[in-house]
Amino acid sequence: MQGTISDASVVAAPTAEEEAALRELYANFEANNLMPLWTQTNDLMPFHPRPRAVPHVWKWSTLYPLAQRSGDLVPVGRGGERRAIGLANPGLDGRAYISPTLWAAIQYLGPKETAPEHRHSQNAFRFVVEGEGVWTVVNGDPVRMSRGDFLLTPGWNFHGHHNETDHPMAWIDGLDIPFSQHNDVGFFEFGSERVTDYATPAFSRSERLWCHPGLRPLSGLENTVSSPIGAYRWENTDRALAEQLLLEEEGQPATVEQGHAAIRYVNPTTGGDVMPTIRAEFHRIRAGTKTPVRREVGSSVFQVFDGRGAVVLDGETRTLEKGDLFVVPSWIRWSLQAESEFDLFRFSDAPIMERLCFARSQVEADAR
Amino acid sequence: MQGTISDASVVAAPTAEEEAALRELYANFEANNLMPLWTQTNDLMPFHPRPRAVPHVWKWSTLYPLAQRSGDLVPVGRGGERRAIGLANPGLDGRAYISPTLWAAIQYLGPKETAPEHRHSQNAFRFVVEGEGVWTVVNGDPVRMSRGDFLLTPGWNFHGHHNETDHPMAWIDGLDIPFSQHNDVGFFEFGSERVTDYATPAFSRSERLWCHPGLRPLSGLENTVSSPIGAYRWENTDRALAEQLLLEEEGQPATVEQGHAAIRYVNPTTGGDVMPTIRAEFHRIRAGTKTPVRREVGSSVFQVFDGRGAVVLDGETRTLEKGDLFVVPSWIRWSLQAESEFDLFRFSDAPIMERLCFARSQVEADAR
Amino acid sequence: MQGTISDASVVAAPTAEEEAALRELYANFEANNLMPLWTQTNDLMPFHPRPRAVPHVWKWSTLYPLAQRSGDLVPVGRGGERRAIGLANPGLDGRAYISPTLWAAIQYLGPKETAPEHRHSQNAFRFVVEGEGVWTVVNGDPVRMSRGDFLLTPGWNFHGHHNETDHPMAWIDGLDIPFSQHNDVGFFEFGSERVTDYATPAFSRSERLWCHPGLRPLSGLENTVSSPIGAYRWENTDRALAEQLLLEEEGQPATVEQGHAAIRYVNPTTGGDVMPTIRAEFHRIRAGTKTPVRREVGSSVFQVFDGRGAVVLDGETRTLEKGDLFVVPSWIRWSLQAESEFDLFRFSDAPIMERLCFARSQVEADAR
Amino acid sequence: MQGTISDASVVAAPTAEEEAALRELYANFEANNLMPLWTQTNDLMPFHPRPRAVPHVWKWSTLYPLAQRSGDLVPVGRGGERRAIGLANPGLDGRAYISPTLWAAIQYLGPKETAPEHRHSQNAFRFVVEGEGVWTVVNGDPVRMSRGDFLLTPGWNFHGHHNETDHPMAWIDGLDIPFSQHNDVGFFEFGSERVTDYATPAFSRSERLWCHPGLRPLSGLENTVSSPIGAYRWENTDRALAEQLLLEEEGQPATVEQGHAAIRYVNPTTGGDVMPTIRAEFHRIRAGTKTPVRREVGSSVFQVFDGRGAVVLDGETRTLEKGDLFVVPSWIRWSLQAESEFDLFRFSDAPIMERLCFARSQVEADAR
Repeated sequence: MQGTISDASVVAAPTAEEEAALRELYANFEANNLMPLWTQTNDLMPFHPRPRAVPHVWKWSTLYPLAQRSGDLVPVGRGGERRAIGLANPGLDGRAYISPTLWAAIQYLGPKETAPEHRHSQNAFRFVVEGEGVWTVVNGDPVRMSRGDFLLTPGWNFHGHHNETDHPMAWIDGLDIPFSQHNDVGFFEFGSERVTDYATPAFSRSERLWCHPGLRPLSGLENTVSSPIGAYRWENTDRALAEQLLLEEEGQPATVEQGHAAIRYVNPTTGGDVMPTIRAEFHRIRAGTKTPVRREVGSSVFQVFDGRGAVVLDGETRTLEKGDLFVVPSWIRWSLQAESEFDLFRFSDAPIMERLCFARSQVEADAR
Repeated sequence: MQGTISDASVVAAPTAEEEAALRELYANFEANNLMPLWTQTNDLMPFHPRPRAVPHVWKWSTLYPLAQRSGDLVPVGRGGERRAIGLANPGLDGRAYISPTLWAAIQYLGPKETAPEHRHSQNAFRFVVEGEGVWTVVNGDPVRMSRGDFLLTPGWNFHGHHNETDHPMAWIDGLDIPFSQHNDVGFFEFGSERVTDYATPAFSRSERLWCHPGLRPLSGLENTVSSPIGAYRWENTDRALAEQLLLEEEGQPATVEQGHAAIRYVNPTTGGDVMPTIRAEFHRIRAGTKTPVRREVGSSVFQVFDGRGAVVLDGETRTLEKGDLFVVPSWIRWSLQAESEFDLFRFSDAPIMERLCFARSQVEADAR
Repeated sequence: MQGTISDASVVAAPTAEEEAALRELYANFEANNLMPLWTQTNDLMPFHPRPRAVPHVWKWSTLYPLAQRSGDLVPVGRGGERRAIGLANPGLDGRAYISPTLWAAIQYLGPKETAPEHRHSQNAFRFVVEGEGVWTVVNGDPVRMSRGDFLLTPGWNFHGHHNETDHPMAWIDGLDIPFSQHNDVGFFEFGSERVTDYATPAFSRSERLWCHPGLRPLSGLENTVSSPIGAYRWENTDRALAEQLLLEEEGQPATVEQGHAAIRYVNPTTGGDVMPTIRAEFHRIRAGTKTPVRREVGSSVFQVFDGRGAVVLDGETRTLEKGDLFVVPSWIRWSLQAESEFDLFRFSDAPIMERLCFARSQVEADAR
Repeated sequence: MQGTISDASVVAAPTAEEEAALRELYANFEANNLMPLWTQTNDLMPFHPRPRAVPHVWKWSTLYPLAQRSGDLVPVGRGGERRAIGLANPGLDGRAYISPTLWAAIQYLGPKETAPEHRHSQNAFRFVVEGEGVWTVVNGDPVRMSRGDFLLTPGWNFHGHHNETDHPMAWIDGLDIPFSQHNDVGFFEFGSERVTDYATPAFSRSERLWCHPGLRPLSGLENTVSSPIGAYRWENTDRALAEQLLLEEEGQPATVEQGHAAIRYVNPTTGGDVMPTIRAEFHRIRAGTKTPVRREVGSSVFQVFDGRGAVVLDGETRTLEKGDLFVVPSWIRWSLQAESEFDLFRFSDAPIMERLCFARSQVEADAR
């Protein structure tokens, strides 16, 4: 096993007889479902992660009109299940995977449409960069979707969506489909064709039970593997970030680094990540701030929520506007630059890396 | 080792010679700091907990005037440190312990007074049944105290109090002093004679950083043994309980039992108890509801926050009004009866019992 | 997202105009690295795991002679690093992966040969089905390899092997290479070309420090993510299994099911799996016993250590002899049948499934 | 709350009128089960632990003959339950407590005697400094007791003892009786008057199932709060300590400090302490070694198992021989000095201190 194998080390000028013997050996290997390690030119064990996935930016100005056009041309319903368009990493052979572990898609629901209920082992969330008017119904609990909200449908919870308005709505779906697919862990079940509850309450039951800071219902003392909160509202996220920046101005420790406020969405029963495979965070960067150059094991996806700025991906600067998405594959250098106050939603496979003890990260001393 | 020892089993009609020999043996034991187990009449190992502490009710209508009178007669400051009056369990030999593990006191701070800063290993909290105008300063962070608030000063955090108003204020202190004292675990250090910050912000820095439901600051990813939240505000507690009762009315699982809403104050970094030795909860019981008869290993203290009702302690009914406190020693039967909507704050040593695996509880089938 | 997608549901008899519009939409998708979900015929979200990997048996009588022949023809050393021949699952497109997560190989070391030192993020172990005479040197600690021993080289530990004898030796390597490769988590570093210590002690330092049942050195109170034990000796495994069967004969609960003794190799600092991604167990089945039909999420590899029997893989019975290996992909039914007393080593990716909460299993009531 | 309270600070030269008012106030306090904090002269919150328990040594040469004499004069059986003589700390008011948390006793069983079965919440162990011939039967599993063995009867396991020989045997019992008593957590139940199994196997079933290093039975995958191992045999302890000293001689890290080998008895399902309230360890110190001066929160009891040496307790040197016991109360300085190779068994309440986050320790730089 090695980094870059030089075959030279293996056979130095073999004789014709030796070559014939080797050929026979290799034919025998193949006939018996065996593969010699020492002739493999591809890197089974590279010196550091060398992802096939590449850094890439998708522009919201491209994405949204295509989703809209799909709304005109393609129905939604049982079978297709969702009008979702996956972001396909150019390095991943034409599969709709944004990274080896993560799926990201724009989902579009027309006026009065319903996406039928189903459930699956795959963990899912939605993040709303604009719009309102759709309720997602998770295990019978209707959850309003509005700009800035982060919504959960952890594995094996029934969920469907319906649009109560006469305007369409689009949002981002994030799932662990590629991970589940590669590792053969997925189960799927159809539910009701219509959602089970068309009520449109301002707050879901999950929020009414769980969204009181530091207070845990005595009816919910058992820890759960995923967060019981159905929706993390923008108002709370915004306030938390604003307070961090104010505290920083008052000279108090509160931000993750100078000019960089950030929160992690967590499971209130444990304080840990919202789902076993997906981490979600929200970052706010002061105008003029550049974050240090980082690289991490595992892949991340960001979506710009507000403001203007840029990301430097492996040395290349890409400007960003509201709605733009980009992926940072494993061990690729990245940093953010805020032209105005710059708000970004982030999700990643970090819980996988941490739970399996593969996490590593590096911050470069000079971030200029 | 035994339950109820009958000495009869040990020596059945000894001869005079045998008695002399035993007397000599026991004298030798005493001379050598030894004690035979078999002659002990006290119960080292009872069949079930037989606490020396007794159930007891303290009336707010008695407590508060005495605290007020102390305010007239006794100064506060370095040395005495606090104008606090401990609730002394009648069964505990005149020590100011409300139970073998817990301390409860009423603390009284006159207009413009300051209680100086200090810190100690003992975990402490305050609960405010009425009044406002005092700020407690915890490690330099000023925390407003208002009716219904639950405030933390976990072990080894500097803290002092000051009253900014021209009226006095009283509240309840809860600590693990008896546990710490019995087990010889306590350290103490004087701090500043004046509090380090006389600012009077509406919200402490700890709340501004931590009190956003489901959101964790990236600057606070290390778990802490005690909650980083300085104050759990009444508005949140009240709303959480109201929602539970509304959800119950809507037919949803939310309350701990019919007509009985309850929250536990928790550490947001873990979802567990606020401090390693003390559990704190708030209970709201619908008018007309009687809770099942329970008994638990470990001791609890309740304070009525609002409403009228009664507690049945070991079969005896005691009516309760706002501010009244009562203690439930280990394994004593108790149940609550709500005449009006009935709000109670509760604290207990349950984390000790659970972490050391001594927890047991029993609910009686028929609570009539 | 879907189970079995019927495209029919999506577009029912489109007009020529509609078809042109769709064609244009899809071309736009492709141009912008997007993929519509609703036209995918492959199953992103199957009803249950449908692994591409297939159940397969490799015969030791085939494997060993091919390894031997490699020993004649192929040198070992820096560059190729190891003379290892990977078992390539016929369903996995000619990659040397026995399952999507696991790598299994036979490694062969000739008389007096050294496999140079290196380290990598990938977790590795060795299991010795026959032979002796090689020492693996793990972070400088020489570990004897003998029949029945299970040996660890957890991620990022330097390790090399050397054969001190004048006869060759072969064993099984197990790693999480496919998982690491798919998820881009791997780092690799060359170490010394020769092993750092050619001593040949009967027991490694790790065993001398850690292999005393129930006793933990005070110098090792920090928990470690992988087991600190370098070698789990056959004598202990054999004795543990023998005792379980004896206890079963005495009517005591000890076996995992009637006639089926089994141990899991564990990390003594936690009682959990030896490494974060790999579970290893040893199973002993009484002659005549058939185990219930099971299926589990995640993949397993077994090697027959002793005895004769069979495995039923997805309904097909395959007879097995000493050294034979087989793989059970995710959610494939399997059961074991013991003709004689039947000893099998097993390893799997179960820690991945459990830590990420994807674990599921099913035992069929009637195993006939 | 205070360190050392000077009442001077409270009332500076009161007038007669003030004195009368205070007297009335204090009388009111007393009448209402209240206690002012500011007049307490005893230290509720000392600057550091000031245990009432004192350091003390009990000589085996005194203990054993008194136990023997009890064997002549006092029967054993239902009611008295055990012929146990508790070591009563001189500072603890004539209670048979060696510390506020721990109980230590010498138990003596005559030829052919049986101590009847019972169970209790209190956690118990036995340590055998000399002798053999008794079996303790724990939940029906007969466990041989021999010199150097450490035996567990965790809370709520039935246990009785019987002596199969015609010579007496004595050993040390350790329990958490004082902790349980103070905190009102104990339950007790009588079992069979005779032990349920008079078999005398060399090894208990618990050992046969669990004492294989690094191997966990698949029938025992649920973690248990206490260790499932009934007996930790001297042979294993001795070998573990001998290996540590050999490894130290070879220049390897293995001992806890130079010349000081030590193991902790652990629960193999977790790697943690054997019981929730009691830690047990064994220490071996090379001839001529002096350990650094330490102090720790919590109390410890040591028994000399072999060799000669001394303990320095709070500055006072006490020489020690085989069988001698001593107690180190909380925050008392101690160090050990080995004249010959010096073997000591130790138990403590450290799990209580750690689980409740009161643990602190200090090692002095210069241990001379």
